[in-house]
Amino acid sequence: METILNLLPLTDSERADFLSAAPHDDHIFCPAPDLTFTIDTASLDKIARATVILGCVPPHMLTGCTRLKWLQTWSAGVNNYMAPGALPQGTMLTSASGAYGQAVSEHMFASLLSVMKRLSAYRDHQRAHTWHDEGMVKTLTGATVLLLGTGDLGSHFAALVKAMGARTVGLNRHPDRPVAHMDEFHPLADLEQWLPQADVVAMTLPETPETIHLMNAARLSLMKPDAILVNAGRGSAVDCLALADTLKAGKLWGAALDVTEPEPLPTDHPLWDCSNLLLTPHIGGGDHLPQTVRNIVAIALDNLRRFTAHEELRNRAL
Amino acid sequence: METILNLLPLTDSERADFLSAAPHDDHIFCPAPDLTFTIDTASLDKIARATVILGCVPPHMLTGCTRLKWLQTWSAGVNNYMAPGALPQGTMLTSASGAYGQAVSEHMFASLLSVMKRLSAYRDHQRAHTWHDEGMVKTLTGATVLLLGTGDLGSHFAALVKAMGARTVGLNRHPDRPVAHMDEFHPLADLEQWLPQADVVAMTLPETPETIHLMNAARLSLMKPDAILVNAGRGSAVDCLALADTLKAGKLWGAALDVTEPEPLPTDHPLWDCSNLLLTPHIGGGDHLPQTVRNIVAIALDNLRRFTAHEELRNRAL
Repeated sequence: METILNLLPLTDSERADFLSAAPHDDHIFCPAPDLTFTIDTASLDKIARATVILGCVPPHMLTGCTRLKWLQTWSAGVNNYMAPGALPQGTMLTSASGAYGQAVSEHMFASLLSVMKRLSAYRDHQRAHTWHDEGMVKTLTGATVLLLGTGDLGSHFAALVKAMGARTVGLNRHPDRPVAHMDEFHPLADLEQWLPQADVVAMTLPETPETIHLMNAARLSLMKPDAILVNAGRGSAVDCLALADTLKAGKLWGAALDVTEPEPLPTDHPLWDCSNLLLTPHIGGGDHLPQTVRNIVAIALDNLRRFTAHEELRNRAL
Repeated sequence: METILNLLPLTDSERADFLSAAPHDDHIFCPAPDLTFTIDTASLDKIARATVILGCVPPHMLTGCTRLKWLQTWSAGVNNYMAPGALPQGTMLTSASGAYGQAVSEHMFASLLSVMKRLSAYRDHQRAHTWHDEGMVKTLTGATVLLLGTGDLGSHFAALVKAMGARTVGLNRHPDRPVAHMDEFHPLADLEQWLPQADVVAMTLPETPETIHLMNAARLSLMKPDAILVNAGRGSAVDCLALADTLKAGKLWGAALDVTEPEPLPTDHPLWDCSNLLLTPHIGGGDHLPQTVRNIVAIALDNLRRFTAHEELRNRAL
């Protein structure tokens, strides 16, 4: 019999689903009010007893957790559990990859359209009580959108821009693995020949040694003078000082960043005052969209059914 | 032989298309730099000689224009030419209805998404150099979008929100005439029973005696407390003082207006300071999107071909 510590914020019917997915196991429901870990120290013994944890217990609280067989996170990234010794030897690790695609891609899409239609400038005029026409705007119809990062977020985002008439070109380290909603697919190594052709460069890359400052001053200068950069992956993939210089020199139509390097962005960073930049504080994901939590719960529930049936788990990282 | 005064801003290849559409007529090209009428008084004789005008000459400049047979406007609305005596007796009048649907619907869509994702608040924080999370956001997936006005703009807008997973309910005075991209279609007389069911109310109504202050305080109060109002038709369709009260009392998620009553909005109007409102100065249409001018040119060219072939003209108003 397993001892399943379930930290997910559940509806009553979801709770019943978990009970029936593993009817012979011991379920400890300890729901977090949101996706910030908030278990109280009095509940530490529950963590120590658990053989299955559904939710994100910080690695330092797992040290006494010798019985743990499987950890299902509510995050898409699991880097902090991958270090040697972070989890007891042999523990299976699964992520909630796929749960955030809708929320993050919609935020990117809204931000991109806001930049295309100059809505930040109109907001500024509104605050000054000024009725002022900002001139020409842009459309996605006929635009070429270059996607750097073609996972769950990139694929969701590609579907949205395609629905408005854009052509999608995905760049990936593994161009032999097809991704939905990409009209074309090429190796990431071809980046410099694609940048001058893109009307929009949309980045959803994870942080790896290869992605740090991928968009540096030299590559930013290869973009069209009326192109738009969007980043909602990891802030380090863009050289933020170089981007501020590029934007202030008027070398791009604009940019939208939901991630920066570092985070939070220091109050004296030059990006804040780039008028053609829309800056949001890494809020595209998280649990800002109610659907995201339901997606995470669905992944965890599906994996619990698989675990009980001794089937292979989804989103396996370890 | 006709004398065709062509005021449209044309590319070289478009100019050639007009010449070949009416090869035996006299073409006077007098291109406006944009869609604001700017013909100089020295050219008034050209207006007087014209039998066909492609473009918007103000009615008071048409009084001496006794030979005029047909006026093709670049505007979608032609109210100012419909008054008795505005045009010489028997002049045909055609509009550019259909040319603005893409531009206006995209602006409405970008504005709606901006309100759903709280981008105005993030812009305000950016200007204050503040890294602050604004909390929950909304999605169009599963949302019910009520469309008041189901012409070219409403139909274009419906296609965009449907692509993001919304259900579209169109209300029209003539519910027997089907409109593309509407999941359901009902009489405008049913408005008060539909308002409490809508997550978004999207207005693209023309100004008629029936539409003035259609959304008044009483009808605004029928909307869901987390619903969003969008208006890009005519400003008079919304009681703007009632909307300001409603927004300031926190009775809606937010609103996006591209049109107001009056325009420009007076600097002391309470709408300016509604934090959950995105206000833009009637810029959704016009020629802010290059495609709009190309659409107008295509309509005028098609109508010139029809005129030369003695076929029925598109968008006939008179």
